Amino acid sequence: MAQINENYLKLPGSYLFSEIARRVNEFKVQNPDADIIRLGIGDVTRPLAPVVVEAMKQAVEEMGRAETFRGYGPEQGYDFLIEKIIANDYAPRGVQLGMDEVFVSDGAKSDTANFQEIFGVDNIMAVTDPVYPVYVDSNVMAGRTGNYDTEKGQYGRIIYLPCTEEGDMKPELPTAPVDMIYLCFPNNPTGMTLTKEELKVWVDYARENKAIILFDSAYEAFIREEGVPRSIYEVEGAREVAVEFRSFSKTAGFTGTRCAYTVVPKDIMIYDFKGEGHSLNKLWLRRQTTKFNGVSYPVQAGAAAVYTEEGKKQIQATIDYYMENARIIREGLQEAGFKVFGGVNAPYIWMKTPGTMGSWEFFDKLMTEAYVVGTPGAGFGANGEGFFRLTAFGTRENTEKAIERIKARMK
Amino acid sequence: MAQINENYLKLPGSYLFSEIARRVNEFKVQNPDADIIRLGIGDVTRPLAPVVVEAMKQAVEEMGRAETFRGYGPEQGYDFLIEKIIANDYAPRGVQLGMDEVFVSDGAKSDTANFQEIFGVDNIMAVTDPVYPVYVDSNVMAGRTGNYDTEKGQYGRIIYLPCTEEGDMKPELPTAPVDMIYLCFPNNPTGMTLTKEELKVWVDYARENKAIILFDSAYEAFIREEGVPRSIYEVEGAREVAVEFRSFSKTAGFTGTRCAYTVVPKDIMIYDFKGEGHSLNKLWLRRQTTKFNGVSYPVQAGAAAVYTEEGKKQIQATIDYYMENARIIREGLQEAGFKVFGGVNAPYIWMKTPGTMGSWEFFDKLMTEAYVVGTPGAGFGANGEGFFRLTAFGTRENTEKAIERIKARMK
Repeated sequence: MAQINENYLKLPGSYLFSEIARRVNEFKVQNPDADIIRLGIGDVTRPLAPVVVEAMKQAVEEMGRAETFRGYGPEQGYDFLIEKIIANDYAPRGVQLGMDEVFVSDGAKSDTANFQEIFGVDNIMAVTDPVYPVYVDSNVMAGRTGNYDTEKGQYGRIIYLPCTEEGDMKPELPTAPVDMIYLCFPNNPTGMTLTKEELKVWVDYARENKAIILFDSAYEAFIREEGVPRSIYEVEGAREVAVEFRSFSKTAGFTGTRCAYTVVPKDIMIYDFKGEGHSLNKLWLRRQTTKFNGVSYPVQAGAAAVYTEEGKKQIQATIDYYMENARIIREGLQEAGFKVFGGVNAPYIWMKTPGTMGSWEFFDKLMTEAYVVGTPGAGFGANGEGFFRLTAFGTRENTEKAIERIKARMK
Repeated sequence: MAQINENYLKLPGSYLFSEIARRVNEFKVQNPDADIIRLGIGDVTRPLAPVVVEAMKQAVEEMGRAETFRGYGPEQGYDFLIEKIIANDYAPRGVQLGMDEVFVSDGAKSDTANFQEIFGVDNIMAVTDPVYPVYVDSNVMAGRTGNYDTEKGQYGRIIYLPCTEEGDMKPELPTAPVDMIYLCFPNNPTGMTLTKEELKVWVDYARENKAIILFDSAYEAFIREEGVPRSIYEVEGAREVAVEFRSFSKTAGFTGTRCAYTVVPKDIMIYDFKGEGHSLNKLWLRRQTTKFNGVSYPVQAGAAAVYTEEGKKQIQATIDYYMENARIIREGLQEAGFKVFGGVNAPYIWMKTPGTMGSWEFFDKLMTEAYVVGTPGAGFGANGEGFFRLTAFGTRENTEKAIERIKARMK
């Protein structure tokens, strides 16, 4: 008799965004004329850059001719893309990477979800709270988290690192030993960053404890301030302990086009029960060559075009567009009297709900009064309760309209 | 201290195709002028059909305009593609499927590798021997297979179903109870098929034992003979016990473009330790929405174009081209005195090596004497020893040349 992976039964009912969709649909049925603005899900709205479109079209044409047709590519990505990633995203910041340390994939969601597979189930994982749910859910499915405590809204075996208003949304080092540490900066959902010095504390901790940091820097392109590292490898020693996840999704509007990459330096070791070290890079290569068949060639060609001179300008214009939205949201909310975090080096604005209002209560209020849909902070973890996330990925028009409505109706 | 998933250490050294690449490269260094023909890896050579190219280019242009831009799509695929899959690949054969029973993905390799995740680690799995290595390796990584016995070339906890010359390469029902059964027909590597009656024996077995069949029909488009089911759902009762994996890779030349789909009927139940049934469809949906972010929109648009009238004709012409190659290989090898299987309803030809010659010995002989590279049967499992796989995916010119050389030099 086929038996279920019982760990799946530990996942609580519905996924955050499904519950939001359910509530929005219900509201729309009752209020068919309500002009709802969505500043909730982290999806982009600006089109692909012209150079990307051109490169993809050309690659598709190559696929249509026998002489230039490409079948299976390397599972870890084409050299033409990996070279550009290293030369543009890392070398200018003083980070040297080998060609076999970069793995191109179909998304940072897939990679951050799959990477845990090469760790034993007994590793203790730490996540910030609030947190992007994929890190947690993928580990639940793998059996690494223990059971869900409905009261606390937390899993028994996860070490949570609270990010609170008092701590300026920055996590403190765990007091109990941990083996895997998920960090995401600029952070989703709080929009906050760490300085190089603050990040070094984590790298040092990992080196001392032979822990591995799974560093999600999908939002690095939105960093505006000096002193905020774009890559964890800007921190000394990080090559020994940190995997870095990046994505073209938000940077270049690839949420529907799908391309990302993960850096796994060869210096990182992971240990067997005899204490012998094994190369994490080799293990990930084995995982990817066994279970993945590479990213679509036209998509990789499009991603490579992001790094042309023209491409960089076009991408930067889009990022500037979103960051202007972020400014509008952040300042608008502040004018309306809300306490806000993020939005300076990130496309996310993390706002405190008024008084003792819960996240979902505020969600309903914002939707029914201002016709604006955001994301309840509680969906990102127990410490997200009492907070709310808005994103800067909408159109300018909608962003301005949403903030005007919030100012007028939510004071 | 970060600890490795010890199951990875059970995988024997190098992957089949890496070892082939190593030997070919070594030979090329010593014989730089040798005009090597590769009929080994199952990669296609014909370009994408013109309708696919056109549809993809149009979709890319849509992505470049704000009004038609698409961000995140549904993780399980766009309705426009799922509708066409159901209407063209299933309805004409009398198979009714719901829209939420089809999951579009980036490849059958990913899906056949990932699907085991929703089964508990104590399930007993059965695979044919020889077998496509991904089914086995993904289960090794998950800890479901026990240790590798180097002597036998098999894992301790897998139930192997030998496909032998005497049994006409068809597996027999397991004698010990099993929970997960991987079947692939038309088969890779043997190129053989099962009749509807033969497949029914497996469906009946699964229904009686509450086992689940993971049916890989990636090569169904190559079936030529009547009476050979293209889908396992043509067999009565299969909806209760069978998941079906399909791919555009070989059918439409998508090995480098990446699109596939998996059918998970809602009738299939998988059981928890209390014996309560859970919907396999819902579990796969949860897995995909948590760990995957859908297939690139232009790629899905290209896949949908395969189902236009023009597309079907263009795709069929390519399939006919490869099947003519298959005929040339099969008949040529027979004329040269080899015993061959497959090649009638599949793009794979499975040949017996002469006398008592081992697979790798024959690989070296074929490469050094005929300059033809194929795949040693031993790479597909213990029962593949003494066999050798050639594929029909080469160009006509190379296929003819390879067979002439084999006839002239290998008698």
